[in-house]
Amino acid sequence: MSATSITTGSTREKLLRARACSEELRHLSTDGKNAILLGIANALEGQKSEIMEANRADLDQSGLEGAMPDRLLLTSARICEMARAVRDVAALPDPIGETLDEWQRPNGLRIRKVRVPLGVIGIIYESRPNVTVDTAALALKTGNGVVLRGGKEAWNTNQCLVEIMSTVLGPLHRAIALLDSSTRESVHELVKARGFVDVIIPRGGAELIRFVAENSVVPVIETGAGNCHIFIDESADFDMADRIVLNAKTQRPSVCNAAEKLLIHGQIAAEYVPRIVQKLIVAGVEVRGDGAVCSLAAGLPVTPAAEGDWDEEYLRLCIAVAIVGDIYCAMAHIDKHSTKHSEAIITRDEANARRFLREVDSAAVYWNASTRFTDGGEFGFGAEMGISTQKLHCRGPFALAELTSSKYEIIGTGQTRP
Amino acid sequence: MSATSITTGSTREKLLRARACSEELRHLSTDGKNAILLGIANALEGQKSEIMEANRADLDQSGLEGAMPDRLLLTSARICEMARAVRDVAALPDPIGETLDEWQRPNGLRIRKVRVPLGVIGIIYESRPNVTVDTAALALKTGNGVVLRGGKEAWNTNQCLVEIMSTVLGPLHRAIALLDSSTRESVHELVKARGFVDVIIPRGGAELIRFVAENSVVPVIETGAGNCHIFIDESADFDMADRIVLNAKTQRPSVCNAAEKLLIHGQIAAEYVPRIVQKLIVAGVEVRGDGAVCSLAAGLPVTPAAEGDWDEEYLRLCIAVAIVGDIYCAMAHIDKHSTKHSEAIITRDEANARRFLREVDSAAVYWNASTRFTDGGEFGFGAEMGISTQKLHCRGPFALAELTSSKYEIIGTGQTRP
Repeated sequence: MSATSITTGSTREKLLRARACSEELRHLSTDGKNAILLGIANALEGQKSEIMEANRADLDQSGLEGAMPDRLLLTSARICEMARAVRDVAALPDPIGETLDEWQRPNGLRIRKVRVPLGVIGIIYESRPNVTVDTAALALKTGNGVVLRGGKEAWNTNQCLVEIMSTVLGPLHRAIALLDSSTRESVHELVKARGFVDVIIPRGGAELIRFVAENSVVPVIETGAGNCHIFIDESADFDMADRIVLNAKTQRPSVCNAAEKLLIHGQIAAEYVPRIVQKLIVAGVEVRGDGAVCSLAAGLPVTPAAEGDWDEEYLRLCIAVAIVGDIYCAMAHIDKHSTKHSEAIITRDEANARRFLREVDSAAVYWNASTRFTDGGEFGFGAEMGISTQKLHCRGPFALAELTSSKYEIIGTGQTRP
Repeated sequence: MSATSITTGSTREKLLRARACSEELRHLSTDGKNAILLGIANALEGQKSEIMEANRADLDQSGLEGAMPDRLLLTSARICEMARAVRDVAALPDPIGETLDEWQRPNGLRIRKVRVPLGVIGIIYESRPNVTVDTAALALKTGNGVVLRGGKEAWNTNQCLVEIMSTVLGPLHRAIALLDSSTRESVHELVKARGFVDVIIPRGGAELIRFVAENSVVPVIETGAGNCHIFIDESADFDMADRIVLNAKTQRPSVCNAAEKLLIHGQIAAEYVPRIVQKLIVAGVEVRGDGAVCSLAAGLPVTPAAEGDWDEEYLRLCIAVAIVGDIYCAMAHIDKHSTKHSEAIITRDEANARRFLREVDSAAVYWNASTRFTDGGEFGFGAEMGISTQKLHCRGPFALAELTSSKYEIIGTGQTRP
């Protein structure tokens, strides 16, 4: 089949065909789905040169600067990494068909709640081409069709990846649809595709996520924004606090689970503020502080934080530091400014830790650990679709199980309702 | 407190206050929540005369005809029934705080997934005032605030019920908000209240549900439409089939789990069609048929079904009957026309039954039982919020557990991400 057959056609036509294929996909056996996934992994490795050629064309046209070309670039090693991720998905247990609950009613009806595919999953994402393959693999493993709307800067690469994967699917090749990414029109069509698509997952910047959440008539799983806080309690082990703060801020500052704010208990501020500010600055971090922090860190290059700083997700080597009176003030600050993604308390006081874990209303709440662990892989899910910051359907890192729905199968012996 | 303090104020102000109260509600103990519920049940019974007086005012102003006044009417017995339902909710186990999953990672991190409240639940519903009390009780039991937008025909009744419940809540009385129902403005405001309300559940006719699903920027749980099918397979026990068809069609025709379509296997059509059509007509059901049914039921008053009949949810004593070649044709017909609510197969053939249960993609699929069992009470949930016909978050009858979210509590000993 030619690339043309995969990627041309109207959005509506692609959605209709993905829907039709999803009706077949949901009946595939686990072995059948895994055979497709292993076939995809082999095909990706076998067609490395075609992928790199398509990727070269994207890079040449991109005119991207800074971090972008690196996010877009596919090397031989990165293609092997994509193939390995697909094999990892094949090795995971198949959630479809799992009995979630089962009981018998006094009238003899036997009720079973069973896990089934969602149907068709729509994804809107930006430059990284590995998302194309990861998402398709997770969708296929769960018996779902998938509609991909990638970034226009990755069009040639995505087209090549989808063609390779579709070829392995044979008669079901329309189960993976790649929408035109040259204009925003396909995004508008996708978010209005009620009845064709069962869920849309936006993976990208805050603007994209807001656009999808506000305009979609298809249910959405919001991923994303993380204005994550670390609170250093009065009884914190300072060495542990140093390690966790530096890790959470600097290990990968561009991601949503990186720490953006540091709250320090007033009783330890005089000692701990200069110490951690010094370490952050040495690590290359721009430090902004409230009035108390600026005066405690006098002599160090701390910028006064503006009011907007407390709500901002920097996604770079920058952190804002505030002094709080106690754990209640810390929790009130978090409640006011957090995006409810990940927050941590560093303390030796178990009662305070338990209170923080219980009362802070975020997807992931940590005691004495880095916020950077909010991740499907780190949680042991084996694969990750994203990190949900909404409360419906799933919250926090989500993977295979969250790409499913359920239904009830009820067995009777002629029961009627009195 | 006066009724004025409960029901006046702008929508925005009510939402803000419900959100603020929900922050307190989520920390209430199970005993605390149950004490409120039992207080509400007692108050409802103690203030019957006020409720009936308010209800009388609604009935007098209503000018409603047909079934409507009965749906709106509150008698002493119905108020006791509402109070009993609230006590039933108090007696249910508290889902909040439940450990949903728990594990340890190789790096020593201990991860616990725990059930938490959603926050604030919005409900848009029509005339029945018991929904006001049922919904508030389920929301309070799960530590959620609730924003109610009832029908304007029940305004006085709802205002009285909310005032009684709010009084029991004392300082948290703003946790139950009743929006103005005199115009549609409050519906428009509610569906745009992203960040204030965590989910909106429309309970009512198809038009309301479609409006909410298409206009809401708040996540929605769709409830409702049921174009439910019963397929009588070749090997069906005819007596059982009669009982189930008559029960599913006539026991309560106005509800979403009533049967609307009957599919009969071609091999038994000559014998079974005249038999069941006769029984349906005797039971007062209007029967519409495809060409084959009309000719097999010659002499009986069967109307030819129009193409639109196969997609219509009658919600009254009317059924459309079609002959299908086999189980595959039956499933194809269902796939094409069903709203994916509830479908049943009547058969003695276990292989066919298993195939039907597995392959029909509806919220509830039955073998040898009436579709009328798709109901939270009949499933044993003890209470019901509605029946979800969407695939995300919950599907089928849903109750307490679906009014919750989850979060992860992670305990470490200083772990950082390598």
